[in-house]
Amino acid sequence: MYYEVVSQCTQSLKLVEGWLDKAVKFADEKKLDVDTLLNGRLAPDMKPLIYQVQSACDYVKAAAAWLSGQTPPKHEDNEKTLEELRARIRKTVAFAESVSKAQYEGAEGRKISLSWAPGKILGGKDYLLQMTIPNVYFHIGMVYAVLRNAGVDVGKMDFLGTANFVDA
Amino acid sequence: MYYEVVSQCTQSLKLVEGWLDKAVKFADEKKLDVDTLLNGRLAPDMKPLIYQVQSACDYVKAAAAWLSGQTPPKHEDNEKTLEELRARIRKTVAFAESVSKAQYEGAEGRKISLSWAPGKILGGKDYLLQMTIPNVYFHIGMVYAVLRNAGVDVGKMDFLGTANFVDA
Repeated sequence: MYYEVVSQCTQSLKLVEGWLDKAVKFADEKKLDVDTLLNGRLAPDMKPLIYQVQSACDYVKAAAAWLSGQTPPKHEDNEKTLEELRARIRKTVAFAESVSKAQYEGAEGRKISLSWAPGKILGGKDYLLQMTIPNVYFHIGMVYAVLRNAGVDVGKMDFLGTANFVDA
Repeated sequence: MYYEVVSQCTQSLKLVEGWLDKAVKFADEKKLDVDTLLNGRLAPDMKPLIYQVQSACDYVKAAAAWLSGQTPPKHEDNEKTLEELRARIRKTVAFAESVSKAQYEGAEGRKISLSWAPGKILGGKDYLLQMTIPNVYFHIGMVYAVLRNAGVDVGKMDFLGTANFVDA
């Protein structure tokens, strides 16, 4: 299920581009600079929307890499504009989608270390469940929340995307 | 991995109680009624925090039930107070934790229908990935976001909880 869970996180990350489309539309209507939204936050001591996107990207990228036995590609956190932020999402998605299901073979047995927890490791399963899922959804949730709070017309279906319903 | 993913969602839901503790502390300090926070939202057309908790609970409960071949227990959405909201979380967690790993046997082959998508079904895997994970994390993310936006001292580690780190 490693491939499937990372793919789901990747699908959810992709949806952020649609929310950014709505942010642009909102900024146009209100005659404000979309950068105001990209730098938005829910509280003064919270990191802004741009950071939330970068961080969501990093957790997707890291999961696709470490769980398939690769070192994640380096992506600098230097995005300032909407187009740069879109490009960050797209290169993250491209990397995650470049990893085949077969490459996740042995994911459970991998030991993953995190820069902020020196001397410690997480097993592959704990990393997927306790680190990847909550972090990816936390950060994309904060992107959504900042836009929703600013008045952008995003709704839950924008967060969920489409599901593979079939006729009963 | 069905058992493990639902368990992770359940662990994340449990953390909401700690956020509510922080909400109580904040309300005490500010001399305001905690109900103000329980009815908080990010936008006027968004459902309030109480609903977000109820909805997160329902997606956890439904996943534990349908994926183990059971009909979910009925929980009325009638919580108004903090203690009622805590009770809702606790009965949801108790139900989810009553389902053993063995009961998820055959989860992938199950067909799950949703009340808001009549005539349609989702396979077990799509239900877990496309419905359970994003919905649980969406709604608990909104609980967190409403509290964060109100000034409650919640931080990302409150959202993540503890991970099973071991020495490298």
